[in-house]
Amino acid sequence: MTMRDQAFDQVAKNLGYSFDGEIKIGGNYVPCLREGNTFYVSGQIPRIGNEVVVTGKAGLEVSLQEAQKAAQICVMRALALLQRSLGSLDALTAVPRITVYVQSSADFTQQSEVADGASNVLFEILGEVGRHTRTSVGVYQLPKNATVELDMIATVASPLNP
Amino acid sequence: MTMRDQAFDQVAKNLGYSFDGEIKIGGNYVPCLREGNTFYVSGQIPRIGNEVVVTGKAGLEVSLQEAQKAAQICVMRALALLQRSLGSLDALTAVPRITVYVQSSADFTQQSEVADGASNVLFEILGEVGRHTRTSVGVYQLPKNATVELDMIATVASPLNP
Amino acid sequence: MTMRDQAFDQVAKNLGYSFDGEIKIGGNYVPCLREGNTFYVSGQIPRIGNEVVVTGKAGLEVSLQEAQKAAQICVMRALALLQRSLGSLDALTAVPRITVYVQSSADFTQQSEVADGASNVLFEILGEVGRHTRTSVGVYQLPKNATVELDMIATVASPLNP
Repeated sequence: MTMRDQAFDQVAKNLGYSFDGEIKIGGNYVPCLREGNTFYVSGQIPRIGNEVVVTGKAGLEVSLQEAQKAAQICVMRALALLQRSLGSLDALTAVPRITVYVQSSADFTQQSEVADGASNVLFEILGEVGRHTRTSVGVYQLPKNATVELDMIATVASPLNP
Repeated sequence: MTMRDQAFDQVAKNLGYSFDGEIKIGGNYVPCLREGNTFYVSGQIPRIGNEVVVTGKAGLEVSLQEAQKAAQICVMRALALLQRSLGSLDALTAVPRITVYVQSSADFTQQSEVADGASNVLFEILGEVGRHTRTSVGVYQLPKNATVELDMIATVASPLNP
Repeated sequence: MTMRDQAFDQVAKNLGYSFDGEIKIGGNYVPCLREGNTFYVSGQIPRIGNEVVVTGKAGLEVSLQEAQKAAQICVMRALALLQRSLGSLDALTAVPRITVYVQSSADFTQQSEVADGASNVLFEILGEVGRHTRTSVGVYQLPKNATVELDMIATVASPLNP
């Protein structure tokens, strides 16, 4: 097991969740898709097995800390999907973009702080390769009343762009 | 006419709308743009000619079924734009990403089910090439009070990546 | 100084803001990132130095004209980041996508008109190269109560795709 995959397991352990089971999605689409050397990962909500473990509006029903935890679970799901597609997180060469949607109360303006939950995980597991651009916004609702949804674009080395 | 273009016409007929006229947009931008072998399609709302045919908040003024129909119209507009740029939908090789924004009431959490309206159309018309990643979120408002807005990234074969 | 960089300075002057200082961001991520010949720019809010200069909901606390100004500042920040990375805006070859998030009141439906503020700047500074696809949506909140957030994908010439 490589350093990155070990770091992934350590973050999962610290979170108190396992990402070994099926990464369930809720509709007629695919969880991730490779196009050339780019991987697109579908929007992830903080679902563990069948349960969405963080629901409701940040700033009202959900604290900043709980919302950050939701963001961590979302990004761990995205990484778990990439790990399964690639065999190991070692194949990743960059994470050009994440978008973080935070279900927010009317006056909750800490979407960036919520998204830092995910960003910190990327740096912790991938180091410099985890450098990413980010957009975080406050939305009105999310599927299954999730507090956070996160999607990702990641890249792997290719023969054309090694 | 190819199988995909025939399937497009059949879906249009079933929806009861024609996509033969101008695909109007509402601002100073372009409806789609090719960069290398990637096509970016601007956010589409369910507009037929000059009229946005599904407006208002899903879960309040708009039923799930009507919102799904809005998503279908959005994705048909995106495909119509690609068809015109390429001559035929046969040139498409992948649809790596769609993002589906659903104007939602405070407690409407079926954004995924709404987005399935669009996803099903992609599979029906493009078959395996219609496989896509997806992000669906619940927003507070959309241009012209549209119920759904959808954007897309699609790819075509290129000399470098045939 | 090239024509594009001169046009950038002229737009900045007309806006009444300088983009010479640090382009501050609010979290653990990078403001822009190059992957191959594609640049991803993180979500930009209308911040000048330490101050977010346009805050609140469009249609309620913020007029259409002020929201358009916010969109202009966002896109100028994005261009300033690219200018610094590339030495000059002359290196840009395309702007395939911008996404414009507008903090909106319940019945504000002019997100497209707000986004035109940014789109017009792209055409003014980059000419034909400023042609772009666009998605504009109305969100419930944004980081630091910003009225607008905007992200961008831009491209430069590469050896493989000159």
